[in-house]
Amino acid sequence: MKITAEEKNMRELIREFLGLFYNNGWVTGTGGGICASLDETNVLIAPTGVHKERVLPEELFVVDRTNGKVVRAPRNNTLGISECSPIFCQIMNQRGVGAVMHSHALSAVLAADTAMGKDHFLIEGLEMLKGIAGENNKSRHFVPIVNNTLYERELTQEIQLRLDKTRFASSYCILVRDHGAYIWGRDIWETKRHAEVYHYLFEATVARKKMGVKRNESPLTLAGPLAGTGTLRGAGHH
Amino acid sequence: MKITAEEKNMRELIREFLGLFYNNGWVTGTGGGICASLDETNVLIAPTGVHKERVLPEELFVVDRTNGKVVRAPRNNTLGISECSPIFCQIMNQRGVGAVMHSHALSAVLAADTAMGKDHFLIEGLEMLKGIAGENNKSRHFVPIVNNTLYERELTQEIQLRLDKTRFASSYCILVRDHGAYIWGRDIWETKRHAEVYHYLFEATVARKKMGVKRNESPLTLAGPLAGTGTLRGAGHH
Amino acid sequence: MKITAEEKNMRELIREFLGLFYNNGWVTGTGGGICASLDETNVLIAPTGVHKERVLPEELFVVDRTNGKVVRAPRNNTLGISECSPIFCQIMNQRGVGAVMHSHALSAVLAADTAMGKDHFLIEGLEMLKGIAGENNKSRHFVPIVNNTLYERELTQEIQLRLDKTRFASSYCILVRDHGAYIWGRDIWETKRHAEVYHYLFEATVARKKMGVKRNESPLTLAGPLAGTGTLRGAGHH
Amino acid sequence: MKITAEEKNMRELIREFLGLFYNNGWVTGTGGGICASLDETNVLIAPTGVHKERVLPEELFVVDRTNGKVVRAPRNNTLGISECSPIFCQIMNQRGVGAVMHSHALSAVLAADTAMGKDHFLIEGLEMLKGIAGENNKSRHFVPIVNNTLYERELTQEIQLRLDKTRFASSYCILVRDHGAYIWGRDIWETKRHAEVYHYLFEATVARKKMGVKRNESPLTLAGPLAGTGTLRGAGHH
Repeated sequence: MKITAEEKNMRELIREFLGLFYNNGWVTGTGGGICASLDETNVLIAPTGVHKERVLPEELFVVDRTNGKVVRAPRNNTLGISECSPIFCQIMNQRGVGAVMHSHALSAVLAADTAMGKDHFLIEGLEMLKGIAGENNKSRHFVPIVNNTLYERELTQEIQLRLDKTRFASSYCILVRDHGAYIWGRDIWETKRHAEVYHYLFEATVARKKMGVKRNESPLTLAGPLAGTGTLRGAGHH
Repeated sequence: MKITAEEKNMRELIREFLGLFYNNGWVTGTGGGICASLDETNVLIAPTGVHKERVLPEELFVVDRTNGKVVRAPRNNTLGISECSPIFCQIMNQRGVGAVMHSHALSAVLAADTAMGKDHFLIEGLEMLKGIAGENNKSRHFVPIVNNTLYERELTQEIQLRLDKTRFASSYCILVRDHGAYIWGRDIWETKRHAEVYHYLFEATVARKKMGVKRNESPLTLAGPLAGTGTLRGAGHH
Repeated sequence: MKITAEEKNMRELIREFLGLFYNNGWVTGTGGGICASLDETNVLIAPTGVHKERVLPEELFVVDRTNGKVVRAPRNNTLGISECSPIFCQIMNQRGVGAVMHSHALSAVLAADTAMGKDHFLIEGLEMLKGIAGENNKSRHFVPIVNNTLYERELTQEIQLRLDKTRFASSYCILVRDHGAYIWGRDIWETKRHAEVYHYLFEATVARKKMGVKRNESPLTLAGPLAGTGTLRGAGHH
Repeated sequence: MKITAEEKNMRELIREFLGLFYNNGWVTGTGGGICASLDETNVLIAPTGVHKERVLPEELFVVDRTNGKVVRAPRNNTLGISECSPIFCQIMNQRGVGAVMHSHALSAVLAADTAMGKDHFLIEGLEMLKGIAGENNKSRHFVPIVNNTLYERELTQEIQLRLDKTRFASSYCILVRDHGAYIWGRDIWETKRHAEVYHYLFEATVARKKMGVKRNESPLTLAGPLAGTGTLRGAGHH
């Protein structure tokens, strides 16, 4: 079967990004993963239980995200589809986005640790917030947290409860306690940007917590009054 | 003498993995090492006292793991076999596994430090546990610790005592206090995965200790009751 | 239109340095940037909102630094010029330097955190100070800090107030609280050196703060009296 | 003038090692350096004030280590010889070794910080000590510390006082407070090994200090009595 040049490029890009994520420590030990859409229906998803930085372009599955069914499997029939597949589809359908990555980064685990007993992780007082679509550095950004479950697929119900909350409407990330994070974006490029931004924000929060720094009282007010309205959102990243 | 394509590939893979381990800070300063089986009897082992990231495929020894004797030595006769050789053979024979790596990672030393005065290092409350064969994220995973000895070969007796304990039957790792760790797997690929997983778990434990985070009270119970039975083992990594 | 070999080389160098800065964690998530002069008037500036490590030589803007106007835009007309452009031009004009980089490094944010409530970040007691043009390891080096603002361009006024102060005349850096730093130099090479030196100094200060180390009482006096005069400046880096 | 193949190889190796040291954060911001002998008299030394990871093989100086005079300078006459040159020669002559590296690693600065007010940095209770020629993991290893001085060349006298002390006879390293370290070895390869080992030991000591771990009471005694005699030295690294 012939595949289009677009699909070929996307498969190559997924391979490249998995290598990048591995070098960042986000998908080591065969954990973590990524999916990215080919069109409104079909999405490329990495296989399960393999060393993610060594996945080949031809080893990805094509899945119909509207029903989660495998449309095309890789020729290598020893490969199974990622356990994240249902969650990937759920997030893409629910949020109307085209790509999701799953991180096992230690910084994501520690970020959730700093919000023990809460259903959210609050980020504020950092320029890097501008890197999240629709946000600016005045935003109070709420990232939902779910507790971990034995199987990845059991997370679906918990995640649904969070995605439905208005309070979390601005978030492109869900933290899974003791586990990691799901991060998404309009397309694979925005997902890469969001992944870099959220991991930075996790690390910043953990580092500030260790140093006893509190920036939760809006530090920007020192520089003069700034309207906290919706029109300020998306002030642009540089 | 002709070597098979399989042996040639395995020699190349060992070279590649030593480079990877070096970049991770696990085998710097000529410390650490790796061995991997060619078959039930013969195993490839790196030389001693050399810069591990620069070992060439033709510089590996072939050892009979059943008696520890060198079957084939590298042409370069200035090379001696790794001091870890007896421990490598012991672990492979005892556990029936095909590969072992030895790490001098600082995170392994610090992990043992967090369990001062104990004969084990307990890991729990982390998704990454699924990366260990047979474990899931509900597991209470006990890694044995031995005290360091002057010579690597003197560790053999101490290690034997630990390998014999039922309590440590699930572990693919032994920590050596003030020194590092031995990590093994069914084959070289599982050993790579286990190495990444255990080092992540060492770092996570040390980071949580620094932040004063306690996850030893099973956090998963918050998400509902989960049977802690053997049938739950090996829930699958993604 | 033909470009000179010098311009071609500078465009390549900017691409290379953006890759280097990205690997250092200074310009991830599309944040941060760099500009470098072609002559007294024309300066190359990176586009906004793009993955900085993937900027191509032909994607840079040429800007007239005396008035901030775009002289030549890249052929790809979806690209916009960096939001830092006014600040880049301001610093180059004000300080008479040829290049500026903008960092989103976490260490810059944490360095400013250690000087909460102050308008400056003091560095002393470190050999690496010699890496800053005109300084030596006896220098008490004052780096100005400005509070963050919603838009990058609004920083201009605050930055002007700091650049005008005699106290900050020796600094090749401005810290922006909760955000990062601007670092400059005579040319792109001195800017690279200063970027490496200042980030090292940020990390050193944060690390010493965490360890409770105080080096603000000139430690060099232990080695004998040293004149703190201007003639000692620029003692040379090795 | 023709150079020998040995000299050509050594020049290439120095270039490679400077790149390696740069990636480790030991010679950033144009700081740090290396020298390595061609024979009993002539030694290759890197130029001063340049980006060390970009030094070309033909940019090295040849110096007569017995008198510190430049024997052959690089064709590029804008280059000056490293300010470390006198210290490099002093250490090679005094210790009878063939290579020295100079590190600006933050871990070296922090290691000296943990020994504030002392003339030495004590290392013990770590397997990695075996990586130092002549030492084993039972060794109590004393690394001399000198205070920093304004000019690198002024350090010579202080360093001489330390090199003369019997207590420091086993050390292949001198820490310079607020500055970094000099590390040497029989040849460039042993120097690389020692550099990796000492930096590891610096990091380990700093990390243990942060965690409140004390290993100064010989932990090995738990595993039985071990003679602390000279015959135990050089137990071999693996």
